[in-house]
Amino acid sequence: MRRIKCIIAYDGTNFAGYQIQQNKRTVQGELERALAIIHKGEAVRVYASGRTDATVHAYGQVIHFDSPLTIPEERWAKALNALLPDDIVVKEAAEVSPSFHARFSAKAKEYRYRVRTAQEPDVFLRNYVYHYPYSLNHEAIQKALTFLIGTHDFTSFCSAKTDVEDKVRTIYEANMIVEKDEVVFQLIGNGFLYNMVRIIVGTMLEVGIGKIKAEDIPHILEKKDRSLAGKTAPGHGLYLWKVYYDN
Amino acid sequence: MRRIKCIIAYDGTNFAGYQIQQNKRTVQGELERALAIIHKGEAVRVYASGRTDATVHAYGQVIHFDSPLTIPEERWAKALNALLPDDIVVKEAAEVSPSFHARFSAKAKEYRYRVRTAQEPDVFLRNYVYHYPYSLNHEAIQKALTFLIGTHDFTSFCSAKTDVEDKVRTIYEANMIVEKDEVVFQLIGNGFLYNMVRIIVGTMLEVGIGKIKAEDIPHILEKKDRSLAGKTAPGHGLYLWKVYYDN
Repeated sequence: MRRIKCIIAYDGTNFAGYQIQQNKRTVQGELERALAIIHKGEAVRVYASGRTDATVHAYGQVIHFDSPLTIPEERWAKALNALLPDDIVVKEAAEVSPSFHARFSAKAKEYRYRVRTAQEPDVFLRNYVYHYPYSLNHEAIQKALTFLIGTHDFTSFCSAKTDVEDKVRTIYEANMIVEKDEVVFQLIGNGFLYNMVRIIVGTMLEVGIGKIKAEDIPHILEKKDRSLAGKTAPGHGLYLWKVYYDN
Repeated sequence: MRRIKCIIAYDGTNFAGYQIQQNKRTVQGELERALAIIHKGEAVRVYASGRTDATVHAYGQVIHFDSPLTIPEERWAKALNALLPDDIVVKEAAEVSPSFHARFSAKAKEYRYRVRTAQEPDVFLRNYVYHYPYSLNHEAIQKALTFLIGTHDFTSFCSAKTDVEDKVRTIYEANMIVEKDEVVFQLIGNGFLYNMVRIIVGTMLEVGIGKIKAEDIPHILEKKDRSLAGKTAPGHGLYLWKVYYDN
């Protein structure tokens, strides 16, 4: 068996999320369907760095699978892309050591979240950027973001719908990039809880309009109370941007 | 009656084109449906600067309609956007003179056509940019474009499916803008025949890969033979960008 690692991108708009579900269109379902064709009906399980929710996009999701086939590594992307629907693309494929695991070998993950702040909606970006047509206090947001950097218990920034016990995570970078008509949040951390990025972004936007004070972030973290943070920003502005591994 | 002019944008992906058709989802159909609601069931006819085909986008289509309502002009965009599906947006609305006509008052139109030349497809642009993963000779294309500028009979660049007799049109500008991973064609003219922009772009791409010589363009124009020009480029890279009127 050979272990193949792929970097994939997908447009989350028409998926019920990454993870396979009966009778729903999922990214994992499409990947396994394509792999089953290549393996002449043999089921091939796909492992990802993590799930993404419905409407959430991936620019650089990482998956792996094992195959007995002797397809050269540089041919895998083409073979899969020929069979995948056009809202999933394999960007790179490579043979890796059998000890590599898309989820467990991951050292860090980067998410980006795009917000359109211009007054008018942009019809071409409606599924790709969250439209939040308010003037934002950039300084306040920048300040609030710095309070998130480091190792914290992120219970206040985690959906109640989770069975994860340990809510301590480390955020290495938390930036806001201001572009014309748009702000992009960039978060890099060793792991993210359920809805954590979307709750952080929702909170930052409330900081931006003055509803939450930047100085309150340490207090919100400390209280471990989801109700103190902002609303969960919608999925369609979110991108799993990159998964970091050793080397 | 007041005449209202609107600049609208739409994502052509999920439309059977601009023009109303029975049992098909069209831009005109959606506009007239929204206007009928505002007018309490009264039918309101919408006039556009011209049609666009299925999958073709508009960044700045212009329409007009007449209304007996006394809605202030600055309220029309909001009223319509509240009722329109999210793949159509009214960007601007203004009251105009009853002599204004979206189609007949138009002095010129600008189209843009986006082509992705990078090897890998971009999953987020698949409905918005034509993927043509070839290395293009930019100089040859620039030269070929200059032969199109001016007043010519564009029979060779017009679909046979047309009942227009006079195929003489004037092109004021024909540019290619080279960006990272993308080239954008910009064409401004006093009018365009059926599929004309898409045939011009298809021809320019064949010039770019050396299949057609730039120097052959005058000959192709002269022969008035559609079979001498290149393939019709697909609709999803095309944008009706702007319609020009006096003032």
